[in-house]
Amino acid sequence: MPRKSSRPTVATIARDLGISPATVSYALNDKPGVSAAMRARVLEHASAIGWTPHSGAQALRRGRSGNIGLVLVRDPEELSREPFYSAVTAGIEAATSAHGFELLIRFVRGGADDEVDVFRAWSHQRRVDGVVLLDLAKDDHRPPVLEALSLDFAVLGHYSGPEDFVKVTTAEPADAATVIDHLLERGYDGCLQLTGPFEYAHEGRRRELLARLCAERGIPHLHVPGTYTVDSGYRAFQAADTSLSARPAVVTSSDLIAVGALRAAAAQGVAIPRDLGLVSWDDSLIAEVTSPSITALSRRPFDMGRAAGDLLAQKIDGRIPGGSTIENSPAALIPRGSTARP
Amino acid sequence: MPRKSSRPTVATIARDLGISPATVSYALNDKPGVSAAMRARVLEHASAIGWTPHSGAQALRRGRSGNIGLVLVRDPEELSREPFYSAVTAGIEAATSAHGFELLIRFVRGGADDEVDVFRAWSHQRRVDGVVLLDLAKDDHRPPVLEALSLDFAVLGHYSGPEDFVKVTTAEPADAATVIDHLLERGYDGCLQLTGPFEYAHEGRRRELLARLCAERGIPHLHVPGTYTVDSGYRAFQAADTSLSARPAVVTSSDLIAVGALRAAAAQGVAIPRDLGLVSWDDSLIAEVTSPSITALSRRPFDMGRAAGDLLAQKIDGRIPGGSTIENSPAALIPRGSTARP
Repeated sequence: MPRKSSRPTVATIARDLGISPATVSYALNDKPGVSAAMRARVLEHASAIGWTPHSGAQALRRGRSGNIGLVLVRDPEELSREPFYSAVTAGIEAATSAHGFELLIRFVRGGADDEVDVFRAWSHQRRVDGVVLLDLAKDDHRPPVLEALSLDFAVLGHYSGPEDFVKVTTAEPADAATVIDHLLERGYDGCLQLTGPFEYAHEGRRRELLARLCAERGIPHLHVPGTYTVDSGYRAFQAADTSLSARPAVVTSSDLIAVGALRAAAAQGVAIPRDLGLVSWDDSLIAEVTSPSITALSRRPFDMGRAAGDLLAQKIDGRIPGGSTIENSPAALIPRGSTARP
Repeated sequence: MPRKSSRPTVATIARDLGISPATVSYALNDKPGVSAAMRARVLEHASAIGWTPHSGAQALRRGRSGNIGLVLVRDPEELSREPFYSAVTAGIEAATSAHGFELLIRFVRGGADDEVDVFRAWSHQRRVDGVVLLDLAKDDHRPPVLEALSLDFAVLGHYSGPEDFVKVTTAEPADAATVIDHLLERGYDGCLQLTGPFEYAHEGRRRELLARLCAERGIPHLHVPGTYTVDSGYRAFQAADTSLSARPAVVTSSDLIAVGALRAAAAQGVAIPRDLGLVSWDDSLIAEVTSPSITALSRRPFDMGRAAGDLLAQKIDGRIPGGSTIENSPAALIPRGSTARP
């Protein structure tokens, strides 16, 4: 059902100036066969009546949609509770709109295969010029697919595969040391790590880093994987051996996992921060308002999203080469009630 | 910088079948001049090699972009802390993608004028087929602008102007009664209402409804407007007269305002729930994890967003008339620690 519209077109300009649509088109597209005076007259009138190119026509002519895509792979209702992804999304949008791109968002429930299906559809329809990849797996299968689809992409987070694409890395070695040093300083003598799925490259990396740091400091380290939900944090805490040391601390990969651990500890009568410490690898308002409030790494996900959107837009515009990388600065630790001094 | 692509095109099909691109195009577009057998052969091969129409070409031919737009008018960093809008967005996306539309998202800081600028640009570039409007003002100026731009739209929330567009309304009279009845049942004898800006139609409506219900029940009612942030809730509580009755309750329009009120009460040594009750008009994980936890109306923003996205997609497809309305079912009140029994 096409609708009538007040939008000025090439035909409007031609009618207003009493010239042919072909002449208007040649002038607007800077092609030969139109005098400089006529071109100036057409451009001036086009500007005066608010003419802009049709995005569909522009996409055909320039081989560009002007859109950047983001697929978030998680249950949408769960994601809407997760401040980290909302902040990353807002950051990506801030950068893409500043570069004149629109941001397309899709939530998929199934997994990485469903995400790739969206990328294929977007590519075949020429609906996006590039995408941002989050939550990279160890040997992530998406980069080769995107290369084959000729879609530009930026990676946000740790990735251990070939590195000829633009990416924003996190300062995980520094962040891990910040967490462990804080726990030792507060008198905790063991580390129980509750993460998301181990397939994610950043979770594998965080586990390696914490395990190594604990070994170096001579304190025990345990790890229980789960998902990024309150329920998963609750169950992981229940399943874990909290007697790994005299006064251990729990380190969670997200604020939702931390809330689950806090509730499970309360249900078991474990006193936080006296008998057990708790640190989240993500900060948010949720970590601020719990009781006790949760010590957290403030990683500035908005800034991380903005950096990734910025790199991608520049890559699409051909202004930076593949391989360009921004290293996110180390996170600040916000000490709160969950890791009080002994 | 157009890039080479593996995407199959009309030319691919023509080459594969050894026929002219014109014949392929006629067959795909169901135009006369091609035999039924040839059309079947073309469609079969197109399907086999994964051909899909170019979205730009389709937009030009059908007068449709296949996109739905959403503009969120607030500071993006603040919005990423606000679970209500994340859930509404996820709900809209669930509906629009089910109908085959893509969702374009923009955050604007300035205000409703900046939002209208985005709508104009989207319309002139034919980038979206419709938009969802949130946070309607009393005599909202966006509907007439959208009519003039020939952009379809769906309204989510209370609106008191002319009503020939599709909308999802909230059950505010029932919700207001649920809140006041709960407060009386718990022995509170006054209502201090902390809202967002009074220009929003739903805030005006909530104020009227609570004021009338309080008058009917013979208890005092006070109102302090602010914005949807923790800081604003804190300041509004400080500025308010909390001695309006012997044991009043605070009713906030969002969970962030409620957190601000909770903190201000703690700073003043006001005991919640003993001396003062607290209810939020929005539920979220934040309301669950505060101490005390916050009694809240569970309005299911994901479902509200999905209903709005669904109505808009159906309206664009010409399957429902203007004026179609879905009334959101009344919210359930989740009693928590902030309104304990006396």
